[in-house]
Amino acid sequence: MKVRVPRKPVRLQGFRFAGVHGGLKESGARDVALICSDVPAAAAAAFTTNRVQAAPVQVGLKRLAAGRLQAIVVNSGNANAYTGREGLAVAREMCAIVSRELRIGAELVIPSSTGRIGVPLPRVRVQRAVRAACKRLAVDGFHDALEGMMTTDAFAKFTTETIEIGGTTVTIVGMAKGAGMIAPRMAVAGTPGGHATLLAYVLTDAAVSAAGLRRALQLALPDSFNAIVVDGDTSTNDTVVLMANGLAKNAALTPASRAFPAFSQAVTRAMTRLARLIVKDGEGATKVVDITVRGARNARDAARVADTIARSPLCKTAFFGGDPYTGRLVCAAGYSGAVFDPQKLDVYLDDVQVVRRGREIVGEVERRAAAVTQRAEFSLTLDLHAGKAQAYRMASDLSLDYVRFNSAYRT
Amino acid sequence: MKVRVPRKPVRLQGFRFAGVHGGLKESGARDVALICSDVPAAAAAAFTTNRVQAAPVQVGLKRLAAGRLQAIVVNSGNANAYTGREGLAVAREMCAIVSRELRIGAELVIPSSTGRIGVPLPRVRVQRAVRAACKRLAVDGFHDALEGMMTTDAFAKFTTETIEIGGTTVTIVGMAKGAGMIAPRMAVAGTPGGHATLLAYVLTDAAVSAAGLRRALQLALPDSFNAIVVDGDTSTNDTVVLMANGLAKNAALTPASRAFPAFSQAVTRAMTRLARLIVKDGEGATKVVDITVRGARNARDAARVADTIARSPLCKTAFFGGDPYTGRLVCAAGYSGAVFDPQKLDVYLDDVQVVRRGREIVGEVERRAAAVTQRAEFSLTLDLHAGKAQAYRMASDLSLDYVRFNSAYRT
Repeated sequence: MKVRVPRKPVRLQGFRFAGVHGGLKESGARDVALICSDVPAAAAAAFTTNRVQAAPVQVGLKRLAAGRLQAIVVNSGNANAYTGREGLAVAREMCAIVSRELRIGAELVIPSSTGRIGVPLPRVRVQRAVRAACKRLAVDGFHDALEGMMTTDAFAKFTTETIEIGGTTVTIVGMAKGAGMIAPRMAVAGTPGGHATLLAYVLTDAAVSAAGLRRALQLALPDSFNAIVVDGDTSTNDTVVLMANGLAKNAALTPASRAFPAFSQAVTRAMTRLARLIVKDGEGATKVVDITVRGARNARDAARVADTIARSPLCKTAFFGGDPYTGRLVCAAGYSGAVFDPQKLDVYLDDVQVVRRGREIVGEVERRAAAVTQRAEFSLTLDLHAGKAQAYRMASDLSLDYVRFNSAYRT
Repeated sequence: MKVRVPRKPVRLQGFRFAGVHGGLKESGARDVALICSDVPAAAAAAFTTNRVQAAPVQVGLKRLAAGRLQAIVVNSGNANAYTGREGLAVAREMCAIVSRELRIGAELVIPSSTGRIGVPLPRVRVQRAVRAACKRLAVDGFHDALEGMMTTDAFAKFTTETIEIGGTTVTIVGMAKGAGMIAPRMAVAGTPGGHATLLAYVLTDAAVSAAGLRRALQLALPDSFNAIVVDGDTSTNDTVVLMANGLAKNAALTPASRAFPAFSQAVTRAMTRLARLIVKDGEGATKVVDITVRGARNARDAARVADTIARSPLCKTAFFGGDPYTGRLVCAAGYSGAVFDPQKLDVYLDDVQVVRRGREIVGEVERRAAAVTQRAEFSLTLDLHAGKAQAYRMASDLSLDYVRFNSAYRT
């Protein structure tokens, strides 16, 4: 999906960035990125729940337990996943270099990787590149860093917003990469339960406790990154980090603060915008479909129906073709495992009702529905009339380019 | 996948067949089929577990309860699914016409449909075609009937075998259609618990009790039709019927009979051959991959891993590309929900081990693995080393033609 994102300058007080080419991408593009706060920051993160966790995820999970972070070192072109003890050693080494070069506590640095799974990360090249990145850190290095974390992404994904917290202006900056292997199911580190190679970093100069960041992340995840489906494959590397360095000098926010909801909502907006950019830039994507399932017996059933449609090859190819084939949607709902009465189902494409009480509506409605499904973005709503629970997913279509790309190229 | 199946004559004692064009397919090909035994037969059947059950499935489920059947009337070009009470009425009417024309008990006739979901079946055309099929019934009408049930199938799928039962030769004939919306999860009618538009009919002149047929069907399903995945969408119409008219005059088989295993195994072979033909002829399919997961903690975990790989767009596009990208396989196993230690995992492509104890094997092995994945048929084996359970799936790849076909055409 062609989306032009202007390369406007992005700066955030107390944060410096770098992106360098370290020889991991054959194209010669930047493949190592560094994000660094001038001071230790409060932090929270969510990682993939894939049982096969990349080395950087294993390292990050441990270090985030303390809720404090100063720098994130990222490489693209290689996932450092399924690379055994050597992979873990390289991931830790990337952090150790940053720690030494920048005189930062070793435990305040985490690694992220994205790219091919199962290939050893070239140790010497990475070491050299991380050192170079430390030297190039700059307040205006944001776009270099963004480039350094991209893989099959067609465009850079970022968002900025300022809000007022008790009279103080704070800024929230989000940056992300996505494209393929996107069906994040991430769990917030340090919390029970809870998908990409999605890498996303949301940075702020606000003063927020680690507990506040964890809470904001938990509130934002379900309908942002954990709601998106490109192909339905959940990566070994998905990582979202939320980092607040406090340099805006507002009264520090906790989940109990009066101003917390405003902050939390801004984080949700940032993550939702980034999530949408990831779906728009999904491998081969030509459509973004907002799927809402309501009236489900319970949340699990709602999620089952939304997930099944978001992943169904027949629904996704119909989205690609711009075909309002409601029979495929109803079929997917039917095999999702959710309990509902098909004779009560209502289905809408944007504001056009295409199924009413279990019957496809024919005639003029079909032409209007076809006009909706030709749009680059449209919504699909199913009401099961079986209860009050609902779920939301944001899905791309399944196109010829997705297959071309993934049959010819090792992501 | 181009497979030539010779149109050899198929006859089965006491069975007559017909296939006619009734105006449901625009191509002018046959679209109504009739299968009829000269005498009432013992029968067992399995139907889709999709919550949205096509009208013919609803009718068939009730009538199979008695374990007796004489005729099956099939239409292609329209699934008669999601068509409400009118759809049910048309399905019953198709049977009633057969009952009247052939003087068969109404409860001994069941309908089957395959084609587009959500479109009313044209009542008058179908009535006329069913009447015409009744008149054309013939001992050599097998291939006409097969054509009458095909939709996007590129070739006819059938199998025949004779076995000895206590000195008597009996014949088992199987016929099936498949192509898209293939991920059957079927449950045997009259049994608890238990996936296509797959239609398959296995007919025999053996004398077998209804209980024997149910047992044979239950034994055959898990590793045949319920093991196959084309796209992962489970149809509203999947139907397998097993019918034994007893005209071979063997001593009637029950599950307790000494000769029962021989019969049951022959049914399993017939269903497995038909299942394989369906995967070979899956929409856009260029590969058949036999996926075995062993060493799982339990059967559910084994099935989770096998199903996830069989459905993963990244694994399936890699199969299409002939790319031995084990990282995608390992990733899919990781997010399947199964519990295992990634550091113990072994992976084989045919007889080439590509992952040993959680590490990708590099060097010469990669070239040998690439040679395997270029084959039209190869096996993929994962050993989780977490227990003793195993699961089997037979999957097609995800090709450019699959997307072309399903984005441009309403199945």
